[in-house]
Amino acid sequence: MAELKNDLFIRACKKQAVERTPVWMMRQAGRFLPEYRAVRDKVDFLTLCKTPELASEVTIQPVDIIGVDAAIIFSDILVIPEAMGMKLEMLESKGPVFEKPIRNENDFKKLRSIDPTKNLKYVLDAVALTKKNLNYRVPLIGFSGSPWTLFTYMVEGCGSKNFLNAKSLLYNNPKLAHSILDRLADIVAEYLSAKIEAGADAVQIFDTWGGVLSQKDFNEFSLRYISKIISNIKRSDQPVIVFAKGVHHSLKEIAYTGANVVGLDWTMDLHKVRNEIGEKVSLQGNMDPTVLFADEKVIKDEVKRILASYGKGSGHIFNLGHGILPNTDTEKVKAFIKYVKEESVSYNK
Amino acid sequence: MAELKNDLFIRACKKQAVERTPVWMMRQAGRFLPEYRAVRDKVDFLTLCKTPELASEVTIQPVDIIGVDAAIIFSDILVIPEAMGMKLEMLESKGPVFEKPIRNENDFKKLRSIDPTKNLKYVLDAVALTKKNLNYRVPLIGFSGSPWTLFTYMVEGCGSKNFLNAKSLLYNNPKLAHSILDRLADIVAEYLSAKIEAGADAVQIFDTWGGVLSQKDFNEFSLRYISKIISNIKRSDQPVIVFAKGVHHSLKEIAYTGANVVGLDWTMDLHKVRNEIGEKVSLQGNMDPTVLFADEKVIKDEVKRILASYGKGSGHIFNLGHGILPNTDTEKVKAFIKYVKEESVSYNK
Repeated sequence: MAELKNDLFIRACKKQAVERTPVWMMRQAGRFLPEYRAVRDKVDFLTLCKTPELASEVTIQPVDIIGVDAAIIFSDILVIPEAMGMKLEMLESKGPVFEKPIRNENDFKKLRSIDPTKNLKYVLDAVALTKKNLNYRVPLIGFSGSPWTLFTYMVEGCGSKNFLNAKSLLYNNPKLAHSILDRLADIVAEYLSAKIEAGADAVQIFDTWGGVLSQKDFNEFSLRYISKIISNIKRSDQPVIVFAKGVHHSLKEIAYTGANVVGLDWTMDLHKVRNEIGEKVSLQGNMDPTVLFADEKVIKDEVKRILASYGKGSGHIFNLGHGILPNTDTEKVKAFIKYVKEESVSYNK
Repeated sequence: MAELKNDLFIRACKKQAVERTPVWMMRQAGRFLPEYRAVRDKVDFLTLCKTPELASEVTIQPVDIIGVDAAIIFSDILVIPEAMGMKLEMLESKGPVFEKPIRNENDFKKLRSIDPTKNLKYVLDAVALTKKNLNYRVPLIGFSGSPWTLFTYMVEGCGSKNFLNAKSLLYNNPKLAHSILDRLADIVAEYLSAKIEAGADAVQIFDTWGGVLSQKDFNEFSLRYISKIISNIKRSDQPVIVFAKGVHHSLKEIAYTGANVVGLDWTMDLHKVRNEIGEKVSLQGNMDPTVLFADEKVIKDEVKRILASYGKGSGHIFNLGHGILPNTDTEKVKAFIKYVKEESVSYNK
């Protein structure tokens, strides 16, 4: 097997020494680049997900244009419920919408069993093609939503403020909720295993909505299934990253799932978290994505503050604390990446 | 001065012994009661705020109907910017909207200086009338948004997902941001002082959006002004409550602002927080409002779990971890209040 030319990201995931801190951005493929929007103008979102050549193209754009240290495959977490038979619409105004959300046993029974290697083959093809096109320049990350986060969209049917339907299902029919979550955990484990098989060098589990649960409910309805996935992923030594936005109360528990890396949002204190779990895992994060709308001096100061907060030594992957926002200025993103690359050298000596 | 017939809430704020844990709910006045909606059907939201007789009526409804241990004056945090000259619309679909948000120095200069005792006299009249109508049955709470939370609405002009405009203003024109926040802090301090003067037995500062800031930015742009307000409120011994949703990183700092009570959302661990700051302050919270959509057995279990989490002894005011949701069933709310009253006796022996 050929070797990665830039393996900083992989080494940092394993807490091995690096020359500088690696950096990539959640949602870097898609969303902000004009080059992405040019592709997107020609096809709708789902077609883009389902066309390996195009998915590969937009995945590699930020490597070429921005100089990030890892690529993350262009896709969407909702391809799983879509493959299970839920009709998905991506509305510009409202975000993703499922016409018929899952609210009861009957709705759940109508979902079909899927084999990700067949029903989500287009994603695996995109991974394989991207791996080939990247030609070992940087590692390629595969990803999935966590069962709980997928569940919120499947039950709510669209974005939500209070997650009332999803939470009511947890409270009033925990047995059904657990059945759905368990099924999703099995699918996600197979899906991420297949991505690794197709060439992904690492995988990330996004628990975007873990933070809306109480600690007790997070442990019962989200963490349990993240743990199950990590136990079941077939991998040799590809790192697993868990990003659970807002889950300030359970970082130690996440560190003990078998994850190699814990992602942090911008409300977490890298220094404090490193003291708590830095022996066990690497940390990824955590600049507020809105800082990229600030003047370059502010961006640079924030990069320096975050690097100093983590401190010296390996085990830090620089990232945003959430996905990069649409309309972020490419020039500012380039400056941000440059600052991380320059300013992090002294922390890795 | 006559004495409160039920002063459990005030005693718990001061960590004095109580026979049982007092309970009230954020947003209990307005939103969920059919009796409130009957009043609201006749007048628009702002008219209701500005009509002391009606504001008083809906303030007292949850005392009569639900049996809460404190009343909170019916009003809205946005009456302050409205009094400063910002045209406010309450849209059913979109929430509060300011037609002309504050984005620069010029916008800010156009706002008028206000004296809450004159420009917000209608709120003070509502407080005085409610105090009279309550006839010392339970304490009356006055409230305000924190400067940062008011700032987010004034700058965004409406609800926001990323607070991009508000945060950009912090980053790119911190001087202007501080001027606005400082002005708001002065107004809020005068406003809450006037509410106390008018008869409020306690005041609460809502920092609903403090949790969207990094720890550093929260300290600089929110906490500083909350501290200033608390220093400047004219009061004898009326307790001050600070509720900063999502601000898991700065609870100790909030406890040292001079606040008597710190409000917690449902992602916080009462037991852990009590260990950290329970000597200094009382704690208020923290049931997830969506639990009120669960079966009564689930509600009861959750009440018991939260009481056990705080543990024995005074200093706990039971509340939700955020405002009660519209469409919450009155019968479930009654059951919830009953469970708190019954189950908390043994924790206060």
